[in-house]
Parts: sequence; C-alpha cells; structure tokens
Amino acid sequence: MPDLSEYRQLALDMSVDAVALVPGPNFTRALGKSFMSHERPFVVVIPAQGDPAAIVPNLELASWDLVGFEGAVFDWRDQTGYDGAFSALAAHSPIRSLAVEGQVMRFFVSDAFTRAIPDLQIVDGEHEISGLRIIKTEEDIAALQAAIDISERALQRVIAGVRTGQTEKHIEQALIQALFAEGAESLAFSPIVAAGDNSARPHGKARADYRIKAGDALLFDFGARKHGFAADITRTFFVQDVTDEGRDVYDTVLRANKAGFEACRPGVTAHDIDDAVTGVLEASPFADRIRTKTGHGLGRDVHEAPYIMRGNSQKILPGMVWTNEPGLYELDKFGVRIEDDVLVTGDGCRSLTRFPKELTIIGR
Amino acid sequence: MPDLSEYRQLALDMSVDAVALVPGPNFTRALGKSFMSHERPFVVVIPAQGDPAAIVPNLELASWDLVGFEGAVFDWRDQTGYDGAFSALAAHSPIRSLAVEGQVMRFFVSDAFTRAIPDLQIVDGEHEISGLRIIKTEEDIAALQAAIDISERALQRVIAGVRTGQTEKHIEQALIQALFAEGAESLAFSPIVAAGDNSARPHGKARADYRIKAGDALLFDFGARKHGFAADITRTFFVQDVTDEGRDVYDTVLRANKAGFEACRPGVTAHDIDDAVTGVLEASPFADRIRTKTGHGLGRDVHEAPYIMRGNSQKILPGMVWTNEPGLYELDKFGVRIEDDVLVTGDGCRSLTRFPKELTIIGR
Repeated sequence: MPDLSEYRQLALDMSVDAVALVPGPNFTRALGKSFMSHERPFVVVIPAQGDPAAIVPNLELASWDLVGFEGAVFDWRDQTGYDGAFSALAAHSPIRSLAVEGQVMRFFVSDAFTRAIPDLQIVDGEHEISGLRIIKTEEDIAALQAAIDISERALQRVIAGVRTGQTEKHIEQALIQALFAEGAESLAFSPIVAAGDNSARPHGKARADYRIKAGDALLFDFGARKHGFAADITRTFFVQDVTDEGRDVYDTVLRANKAGFEACRPGVTAHDIDDAVTGVLEASPFADRIRTKTGHGLGRDVHEAPYIMRGNSQKILPGMVWTNEPGLYELDKFGVRIEDDVLVTGDGCRSLTRFPKELTIIGR
Repeated sequence: MPDLSEYRQLALDMSVDAVALVPGPNFTRALGKSFMSHERPFVVVIPAQGDPAAIVPNLELASWDLVGFEGAVFDWRDQTGYDGAFSALAAHSPIRSLAVEGQVMRFFVSDAFTRAIPDLQIVDGEHEISGLRIIKTEEDIAALQAAIDISERALQRVIAGVRTGQTEKHIEQALIQALFAEGAESLAFSPIVAAGDNSARPHGKARADYRIKAGDALLFDFGARKHGFAADITRTFFVQDVTDEGRDVYDTVLRANKAGFEACRPGVTAHDIDDAVTGVLEASPFADRIRTKTGHGLGRDVHEAPYIMRGNSQKILPGMVWTNEPGLYELDKFGVRIEDDVLVTGDGCRSLTRFPKELTIIGR
C-alpha cells in the first residue's frame, strides 16, 4: 500500500475533510504508477480521518492492481457512466469539503463531485498538494540530472547540423529525434525552435515555411523527460553572424542569468531572486523588452512551484529546483532567452545545466 | 478575424450567455493557432450577443497577434495575477451562464470565473462544443490519413526488428523514434507496447524489466499526430509461436472488428455498432474477457465523440471517424485488441487504417 500519510496530514492542515488526486504528477508520486485519464474520471480521495477510497475506470482495474491500494474502490464502466461511482464514494466517505489540484482536475470531475454531494465545498489545494514535492529527494535530483544530460547531448548533436536554408520545423524534428535517440522516455513539452522574429515570441511555434538565414537568432527551449522528471533548457544562438545589438542583448540576458545564481541561497525569497535578475534587465537599455518573470520550479511538472517572481514571498530552500530563464524580446525583431535548471544547495545553488552559455555562433 | 459564428450560435442553442474555450483542440480549431496554457489561465469567451473577449497571459500577446482576434483582450502578468483580468472581462461582458469544455477546462480556471462572477452558472458544454467538429472535413480526413500512414510505416519498421530478449521499453523507444523518422509532428499519446501478461492491461505501460519471449502476445497501441490530427491504431502480434487459445481469441476479436464494419452505415446509432461488435465477443467462449466498449471518435483529440458504446443513441453520420477496437483481456495471461480508424461514408464506412490484421507471427 502506498504511504498516503502526508496527504492525510495535509487534509488536517488545510482543515478540509479530504484531499483528492487525479492522474498527473502528484498521483504518480503518491501511488508509484502513472495513469492516463482522458474522458474517464479517475480519482483517489484521501480523508483526514478513515481509509482512502478511489474511483477507477473499470478498464484500468488490471493496471490499478499493481498499485497495491488498500481502500474502497468504486469502479465504473463506460456503458453505465460514472455518477454511480461518485454517489457510492459519497455514501462511503461523507465529506463536506475537498482540496483538489486546481491545475490538474478538470471541470467534468469537479462537476461530478458536486452532483454527488451538492453542498460540497471544493477548494483549490494546488499550492499545498504540489508543495509536498517542492523539496526534491536525491532520487528526484538524479532523475532531473539524467533528463538534463540527455537534453544537452541532443542539443549538441542538433546545433552541429544547423545550416542556413533549413526550416524551423526541420530543426525541431531533428531535435525531437535526437532527444529520443539520446534516451528520453518522452518530451517534457512540445519543443520551441524559433528563429529571427519568431524568437521574440516567448512561446513561438516552429514554422514550416521560414528558412533560417545568416544573422538570425535561433532559440531552442526544450527538454527530455526521464524517470518521470522533466528538463527545461533554453539556449539562444546566432546563425553565422551577430549584430552589435544582438551581442548587447545577449550580454544583458547572460548577466541577468548570472545575477540569479548570485542571488540564490537558502532563506531568500522567490521575490528576491526575480528582483535581482529582472533588475539587471531593467537597468539595461532594453528594459522595454521584458516579457516574463525569471522562472518556475521544475520536477515532475515542467511548470510548478516555486514561481520565481516579484511579489512571491515563498522562501527558497535546499532541495528546490527552479529555472533561471531571463529573456528580452523585441517584437518583429528577435528575442534572447538563457535558461538553466538550478538546484538550491545548503549554502547557495548549483546549475544542473552544464551546456555552455557564452554567446555562440553556429551554422558556419 | 477567425469566424466564431458557430460558437455564438451554440450559446444561443444552449440558452447560455456565452461559450468559453481554453487551449486545446476546440481552441485550435476556432482560432487557427495552438497555444499552451500550463499554469496560466488563457480563455476566449464568445457571447450569444456582442463581441468576443479574451483573457491572455501577457507573454503570449506576441503569439496571440497572429490570430487576428477582434474583440476585447484582457491580458495579465504573472507578477500581478489573473483575477483582475477576470473581473475586467466580467465588467465588459456581463454573463450569468457559461458553457465550458468540461474535459479541458481545469478547476483553477472555472474557480477564477466563479470568483469574478459569484452567481455564474457554469455548465458542461463538452458534448456540444466538441460536437462542432464531429463531422470531419476533407482537410481533416486528409490530415487523419497522413497521421495513420505515418503510424503504419513506423509499425512496419518496428516489427521487422522485434526479437526475443528485447524489453518492452526497448521496443517502445524504437517505435517512438520510427514515428518521428516517418514524419510525426508529435505523438498522439504515450504509446502502449505490452507483451505477455501486460497485454491483458488495456492501458499497460511498457516495462523496462520484461524481456519478450516466444509465445508472447505483443500489443502495440499508438499513433502519430500530423497537422493537429491524431491516429490511434492497435495491432496485436504473437512472437514466434501462438497457442490454440491465442489463435481462437485472435479470431474472435477479428470477427468482432469485422462486425463493426458491417454494422456501420449512416443512420445507425453508436449503440447499434457496439451491440454488433460486443455481441460477437459475448457469443464466444471468451465473454468474461470483455473489458472495454468498442471505441471512440477520433480527430484533433484521441478520445472524442462519438463514443461507440451501448446506451449511446447518437446517430452515426457521414464524415464521423471512430475507432473500431474490440479486445479480449485475460488477467495474468494475455490480451488481444485490433483497432482500426473508421470513416463513415455516404452509404457505409471505410477503414482509414490499412495495416494487415490477419494473425501475424513476428520475431522469427
């Protein structure tokens, strides 16, 4: 039986009757197996008092057996629908308040709870529930490092093959293939490969009709997933040539990135780090090109706490991992972002990313 | 400006003040561009009366410009949060009832609506909203066919390399690489490669520690995504040898699959098709191994309407695409599933999947 005691304790701490988990990073962490959900509600309810219970799609029971869950299981079949399972769970575990993962649970599941228990108070417990995995274990860090190492080898391989005339889409596909060839178990997210004006879009999509040319900035934001953990790395290169402006912008972003490492030590807040990083950008001639916060936590989720931004008073503690990703973006021109994955240590921090970040010209 | 008139009409038909779309298949279809959402609310609200409005994360504005959206845009920054954007939208577009995509919108977004408009009635409009794309256009079908063709070429390549002693994980990774090498733009879903007893789990995960051996069933359930559309194909092979029971089970599943094609023509219901398919399984000696309905719609989503199951009176119409995927699963022993992607035509149906489905021995 998976140990669910910290979720039980969380329900007590949050003064709710129970915590609910749905397939996703917390579910995988809590139960030791990952599941898909698609159109089928699949929920584990961990009450402050009493035994846990689960709503499981019937066709998943054979996989669910591997979890070793000891608690009531209410399975349901497509043909009869899931409302009966929610009602049965409600009768078995009388709950009046429920903390859910607000960023994972979809409306059709919260709606099913509300139909079964009309006066149920559902609260967004995303921060608290995902907070249980904010301090990484040694095993977590080893998995993150493996994902990062795969990603860096893939990037090295891909930039060696970049030539002018290739499309962004071509390079994106080469990157994806290199990630799997290097051992990724899946992609942490759909990679961003953006050149020229597209690099100025923080979430630009690779274009099939844009051919990279001399002088373009070429931005890669990508990551492998390994052992359930996600890498998230950005490097921006210049193709064959770089303008003075490109060099100045790059230098500014790199100084901001370095300021993030200098500001990072246990006890400072997420605000402090963003303030140091964004402060460098603001003090530059390119202050009007700031579009994003400094970064976000990284682990089983690509975006998770701690969010590294001004106004966030969350304390930075040893074992947290966050992305240090300042950027400057000039619409219709170009963007530069440099992103490292940073582990907070006992007395400072250490970059898990080791890919060089000095300005690099590629595609010669 | 994207044409949102059918969503406006839907709001009228559903007697709600507006329809909300969040990043996902409907959003991409409606706006012509795909977006990520992660931890940031990103919503388009299309009212029955008046202009549409959007809540857009500030860092997405540069990508959002490509949409050509004409309506109010309420952007928000990480540092200040999104509640202000929801309140501004509420002041701009007074709505009291809202249809949402229940299977896509997450709780933190519906919760933000409720904070901004405490008496808002949120209804699950998944069926109606996604229903707008249930009849595929010729362009949709061409994209589906491209995704399927890529998937079939990848499978052909992978089974040629299967040998006893390989792990499920090894074969899964080979499949993923083959999908991208054949032109996939991404994976439709995390592929299932399951041998022996694992094939009896409808959603079994590839194991790193199980080596396939002679006599194993070897099930592949996978698909490429191309031009935004997802293939979803299952084939089950036997490694080097097959028992009489394996042959009988396979033959039963194949007959059920064929019964699905025979039952499919415009005007019958989803119930009728499942009844014909499942009826074959029930009439066999293996009736106790039935675990799933016959299938589901396929398009931009891997699982979408129409759901092919008993009790569903939805009419099958030309242009619908659905998966015909009967299976039989004996726990601790083996499972067989055969899945084709089926297009409903003017007078019957046609398989978009062309990979052979007669019993095939591989790994010699």
